[in-house]
Amino acid sequence: MQERHHVVVVGGGFGGLQLVNDLKGAPVKVTLIDRRNHHLFQPLLYQVATTVLATSEIAWPIRRLYRDRQEVTTVLGEVAGVDTIAKEVTLAHGQSVPYDTLVLATGATHAYFGHDEWAAVAPGLKTLEDATTIRRRVLIAFEQAEVEEDPARRDALLTFTIIGAGPTGVELAGIIAEMAHRTLPGEFRRIDTRLARVVLVEAGPRILPAFSEELSAYASRELEKLGVEVLTGTPVTDCTDEGVTIGESFVPSRTLVWAAGVQASPAARWLGADADRAGRVKVGPDLTAPHRPDIFVIGDTASVIQEDGKPVPGIAPAAKQQGAYVAQVIRGRLTGSPAPGPFRYRHQGSLATIGKRAAIIDFGRIKLRGSLAWWIWGIAHIYFLIGTRSRFAVAWSWLWTYLSGQHSARLITQKDTLREER
Amino acid sequence: MQERHHVVVVGGGFGGLQLVNDLKGAPVKVTLIDRRNHHLFQPLLYQVATTVLATSEIAWPIRRLYRDRQEVTTVLGEVAGVDTIAKEVTLAHGQSVPYDTLVLATGATHAYFGHDEWAAVAPGLKTLEDATTIRRRVLIAFEQAEVEEDPARRDALLTFTIIGAGPTGVELAGIIAEMAHRTLPGEFRRIDTRLARVVLVEAGPRILPAFSEELSAYASRELEKLGVEVLTGTPVTDCTDEGVTIGESFVPSRTLVWAAGVQASPAARWLGADADRAGRVKVGPDLTAPHRPDIFVIGDTASVIQEDGKPVPGIAPAAKQQGAYVAQVIRGRLTGSPAPGPFRYRHQGSLATIGKRAAIIDFGRIKLRGSLAWWIWGIAHIYFLIGTRSRFAVAWSWLWTYLSGQHSARLITQKDTLREER
Repeated sequence: MQERHHVVVVGGGFGGLQLVNDLKGAPVKVTLIDRRNHHLFQPLLYQVATTVLATSEIAWPIRRLYRDRQEVTTVLGEVAGVDTIAKEVTLAHGQSVPYDTLVLATGATHAYFGHDEWAAVAPGLKTLEDATTIRRRVLIAFEQAEVEEDPARRDALLTFTIIGAGPTGVELAGIIAEMAHRTLPGEFRRIDTRLARVVLVEAGPRILPAFSEELSAYASRELEKLGVEVLTGTPVTDCTDEGVTIGESFVPSRTLVWAAGVQASPAARWLGADADRAGRVKVGPDLTAPHRPDIFVIGDTASVIQEDGKPVPGIAPAAKQQGAYVAQVIRGRLTGSPAPGPFRYRHQGSLATIGKRAAIIDFGRIKLRGSLAWWIWGIAHIYFLIGTRSRFAVAWSWLWTYLSGQHSARLITQKDTLREER
Repeated sequence: MQERHHVVVVGGGFGGLQLVNDLKGAPVKVTLIDRRNHHLFQPLLYQVATTVLATSEIAWPIRRLYRDRQEVTTVLGEVAGVDTIAKEVTLAHGQSVPYDTLVLATGATHAYFGHDEWAAVAPGLKTLEDATTIRRRVLIAFEQAEVEEDPARRDALLTFTIIGAGPTGVELAGIIAEMAHRTLPGEFRRIDTRLARVVLVEAGPRILPAFSEELSAYASRELEKLGVEVLTGTPVTDCTDEGVTIGESFVPSRTLVWAAGVQASPAARWLGADADRAGRVKVGPDLTAPHRPDIFVIGDTASVIQEDGKPVPGIAPAAKQQGAYVAQVIRGRLTGSPAPGPFRYRHQGSLATIGKRAAIIDFGRIKLRGSLAWWIWGIAHIYFLIGTRSRFAVAWSWLWTYLSGQHSARLITQKDTLREER
């Protein structure tokens, strides 16, 4: 009996899971490698960072998802390298996994534009640990302010700066402002949390550049209503544990969050392939790596320029579409059916929330804003979660937050290596 | 206007919260100091360690609980010392808090009977971090076993040892066994998780010594049905990251959990007071520290011998009763009403669960076991949680686990300082 064609997938994010899902019934065996044991619903990670959701509400053990697919093997491991001649993936714990077809869907991390020293003071938001780090720092800042005698230091503790005004930055700024102005007042005896400053800094000319100018302007106004100071057109030039320098001016701020740049995973290095400035592998129109028809690269770690010259954005729906496309290509190759045309990204719309009552949706022709958009946003996100358990749990947490104004997960956990506190 | 009598409470556990709750309306101002920002429902902590519940389901921000009691101030801080002459508490961040009456309710941590080096390999279960540490180690052991080539090492990875067979040890062993034998099978491709060994070691002659012999024997049988090996009458003599030595014999086991001894917090040292072997302050019949009528010590950090010579057990209901009693004493002193008699502990019964279908309840005269006891146990614990949000969330998680056999929170988070894995 001939051994089944072996597809090795590295990365259990949106692209990788869609691919494995769509390979169901194909004449393949699949090995799915991830360095984490869970798939993470990154679009809601900011809600863990801001105490609305619990970690387990937006993460699922990957192994569980493919329990009933006997041809799928899940491996917890970190890739050390790819041998494209021997056709095998080497894992850091020593195991070698041979492949017939390899799909790299390893995502991206945050980039500090050559200032890696900012990472310690301005954490990004990509993993559950990032989220609990930000949550801890935000909560501790209020606690430290409560016992701080010096007014200048107290003000710096009550100033929260978000760097980068894409959806994540906007969503973080909105919820932190709501927390300071609506959730926490009354709980402290010496500080007035309503005096907290939330500063959203964007180097570009406007926030949420993926949206229309009109929606972007609306989002700015809504953020300002929540008490967020929106600063556009000025880059951040320095970050320290005392504050942030925006252009020439220093803003004392003890809590910084980085929501600006991303840097692809080292997939390009593993392959010795050409990469763009963000480290993404420049793939062909069928998403294969250059000169490697047996290796696909998808999601945030691929740079895809479509026929019309437009790049594919680094967002979850794009990764999913790429996963589905590659499954179709692999299936076609094995069954001899004609190959699909080049990958084409279908934009389904952009969504972002501003606090807990407003959102904006840009479907191209149809644009929505306000509370109707917020409900659509909420329902869409619950729909995209995996499984009944999470859908109920998230719906319950949101309903609770909506009705009570309280957040469910206001926990300071783990020690901080940066600041061993007071 | 005379300044109100100032009660300073250190520790927001069961005893501290009961005290503050019961001081409502008394002519006092209260400062509640805790080094954590949350109250933790410790009796369910083992369910976080075993992936059934999420961290935020059993923890509440203390500050939130007293938001509407203007006379209560919450301080996040660690006590550095107590000056009993100046009557003030010094915090590690430098703040001094003067008191008229001081209540120390600072709990206990695990004790390794002079073998502190075991702490790194056999974590105890007292904090949320302890729970996520144990959760991570248990989950990673299965993952490592899946990729381990050497059979002896694989067997050691699939052997889980719980040291100490009080309620926590029994509950941990039961759920880990259920996870290995019922939740995980089918998810791994190379190992059979049903072959995992769960070993429960107890130095004393039987498990659950607080229960009747009959219920204790029943619990043993139920554990054995779940696949737990129960070893009584033999002490653990060594713990390493390779395994555990029980009496003279070495059991290769890569995951150890410590549920054996406790050691009181340093309250006795702060006061320079007499302590028992576990470090607990030997308090008088009214729970005051020796020669310090203005200082009360309650809960796990107090050693109380009642008039009939019986010690008060170190469990949540006892701490709550002590908190209520001290509130009554303080109130009486300030209003001139007669002092209550000496503290008397009323035992309301002992509860423990074995896995997800059986429990034992010892009300003294009435003894229950099996699934009825399990339902009573579950309803009682939901009742004791704080607030509608948690009650719903925990009820939902349990219902889900009960119906689906799946656990909600199977996440490996945070790196482990002990084992940087493979």
